[in-house]
Amino acid sequence: MVRTVKLAVIPGDGIGPEVVGEALKVLDAATAGTDLVFEQTPFSLGAARYLETGEVLTDEDLEAIKAHDAILLGAVGGVPGDPRLAGANIERGLLLKLRFSLDHYVNLRPTVLHEGVASPLASPGEVDFVVVREGTEGPYVGNGGAIRQGTPAEVANEVSVNTAYGVERVVRYAFAAASDRPRKKLTLVHKTNVLVFAGSLWKRTVDEVAAEFPDVSVDYLHVDAATIFLVTDPARFDVIVTDNLFGDILTDLAGAISGGIGLAASGNINPDGRFPSMFEPVHGSAPDIAGKGIADPTAAIGSVALLLRHLGETEAAVGVEQAIASDIADRGDRARTTSEVGDAIAARIGS
Amino acid sequence: MVRTVKLAVIPGDGIGPEVVGEALKVLDAATAGTDLVFEQTPFSLGAARYLETGEVLTDEDLEAIKAHDAILLGAVGGVPGDPRLAGANIERGLLLKLRFSLDHYVNLRPTVLHEGVASPLASPGEVDFVVVREGTEGPYVGNGGAIRQGTPAEVANEVSVNTAYGVERVVRYAFAAASDRPRKKLTLVHKTNVLVFAGSLWKRTVDEVAAEFPDVSVDYLHVDAATIFLVTDPARFDVIVTDNLFGDILTDLAGAISGGIGLAASGNINPDGRFPSMFEPVHGSAPDIAGKGIADPTAAIGSVALLLRHLGETEAAVGVEQAIASDIADRGDRARTTSEVGDAIAARIGS
Ligand SMILES: CC(C)[C@H](C(=O)O)[C@@H](O)C(=O)O
Ligand SMILES: CC(C)[C@H](C(=O)O)[C@@H](O)C(=O)O
Repeated sequence: MVRTVKLAVIPGDGIGPEVVGEALKVLDAATAGTDLVFEQTPFSLGAARYLETGEVLTDEDLEAIKAHDAILLGAVGGVPGDPRLAGANIERGLLLKLRFSLDHYVNLRPTVLHEGVASPLASPGEVDFVVVREGTEGPYVGNGGAIRQGTPAEVANEVSVNTAYGVERVVRYAFAAASDRPRKKLTLVHKTNVLVFAGSLWKRTVDEVAAEFPDVSVDYLHVDAATIFLVTDPARFDVIVTDNLFGDILTDLAGAISGGIGLAASGNINPDGRFPSMFEPVHGSAPDIAGKGIADPTAAIGSVALLLRHLGETEAAVGVEQAIASDIADRGDRARTTSEVGDAIAARIGS
Repeated sequence: MVRTVKLAVIPGDGIGPEVVGEALKVLDAATAGTDLVFEQTPFSLGAARYLETGEVLTDEDLEAIKAHDAILLGAVGGVPGDPRLAGANIERGLLLKLRFSLDHYVNLRPTVLHEGVASPLASPGEVDFVVVREGTEGPYVGNGGAIRQGTPAEVANEVSVNTAYGVERVVRYAFAAASDRPRKKLTLVHKTNVLVFAGSLWKRTVDEVAAEFPDVSVDYLHVDAATIFLVTDPARFDVIVTDNLFGDILTDLAGAISGGIGLAASGNINPDGRFPSMFEPVHGSAPDIAGKGIADPTAAIGSVALLLRHLGETEAAVGVEQAIASDIADRGDRARTTSEVGDAIAARIGS
């Protein structure tokens, strides 16, 4: 029986379209000869669209995207400092708006140091953990404001909003993820000694949900200490659960120690299934190397594997994951073009 | 002419008293035979004092401390999870209260990878930068709150407060510091694409103050990207200026890449001189190794060097810095006791 998945594709800006092209190539290879069909709708969104039309994300765009089963996104954002973009905040108005409107409360960011990949760490040990970053609360809610802007008496505030509702659902997801992994370990990262109200909510929630998962061992680290362990002993981590901002910071660092965010895939997941989940590389649009055909599409291709897993298409997902791993292992130091990497990974599918 | 400096000494908890003992030993050696005299007043503050008296920091303590010219602090904080400390927050009630009450708006944290020190990075390159962390604003202000605590409808907020007054003074300090260094480079670290109000204030302030320091080159990084560069290319940094929370995170990571926070010194500085500045190692009280005489006192001794620099006693400061550097270079892998390290560094003073 044919399964048709409606996929919204947002190539975006800079290297976005280049890496998305390779991701779709691999998706084709992974589904060829199966009953799985991806019906793709391209959406022209990002800095380029804004410069053309003045629009970042219209209500119509959002409604049209909601009518899909899932989203694949490349990267959005123009050239830093482009004066024509000064009034726009593509990240907030597009990327974060999608995450919030589509209730992507789990931002899933696996970190694996693959065989054959050079880490900046001298002896990284075995790196295989996943960060479950909250995606709809924290300092990302946009509840800031300023008074007397531009004067010596200016006050600019940012509010981090944390709710029992929001924290509990992501913590429960993280415990379930930990329980499914061999090491069954969950580390809460926060800053409970300073952010006492938010920290207390996170800490109490983890303690409560822990009772439902007696097989999972629980650890706590302040965010500052967590960055230390990420470079001195990353092997200690299995599942990290943390808030939106700490998760942003930790996953870039995690990407760096595991060979660069050029390899890091992510899923913005709405586990309820009420809204389409969105899969995207952790990296940005990298305008400096755009159009040269040299961007590494591995993170975008990894995001396709996360998409397939999310859809329950485990076999196809494993096929893509193994193709990535074996390509990386053989990759060596030679420079390859974006499409060479995509071709090589696609060719390994099922082989 | 004799110069008498009134020094408040807060040994604190855990390894605090051990490392402070060595720091004072080195201070003695550095001032022996000079006209510089430190009149020391010990203050019993920290978890131990709290357990004994129920007090964290009384108004009398604070007033007595204010009557000093400077403060040397070891580390404060009890054993994590000690139920008797559950109601206390020694970090907030003591350490942060001192920083805020004494208007320590510059939290100065130099990072140097000394010759002979192993870094967890495979090829760190030359690491020599200083983080100027804002110390009296941001998410550290304690302006959070919660409603319906303990219920499924709980909301817990944290507010980051940023003022033109507070940002400008620390940014100006950072520019002056950059201007005094050979590379003359300042990097603002923030998250302007998400924390748009606070980010805008920081960005505009840096742009404005930059005009007064045409010799300093200015760079900007999002905090997530900054953690990447700290492990892939720390040599790119010279002076980093950033907010209280980002500075907390970046300086622990900086400590880790430069050989561990056992080596990292810091100054909580009130540049106006209205209040005594406070010098402390970046590390905590490490109750797990307390009392064993094995804690590394180097960070506490480095804090004495920062204290001497702050007092304008440059010659004595350089003496301590050189003694530390030459001890570290010769240190090798052999384990030494806390007092062996203190003795060795003291012995090298002036030699
Ligand atoms: C582009 C930016 C808004 C975004 C974030 O901060 O979440 C990015 O850094 C990420 O991690 O996906
Ligand atoms: C103990 C804690 C409150 C403190 C901070 O967050 O500032 C510490 O981590 C530091 O960096 O000095």
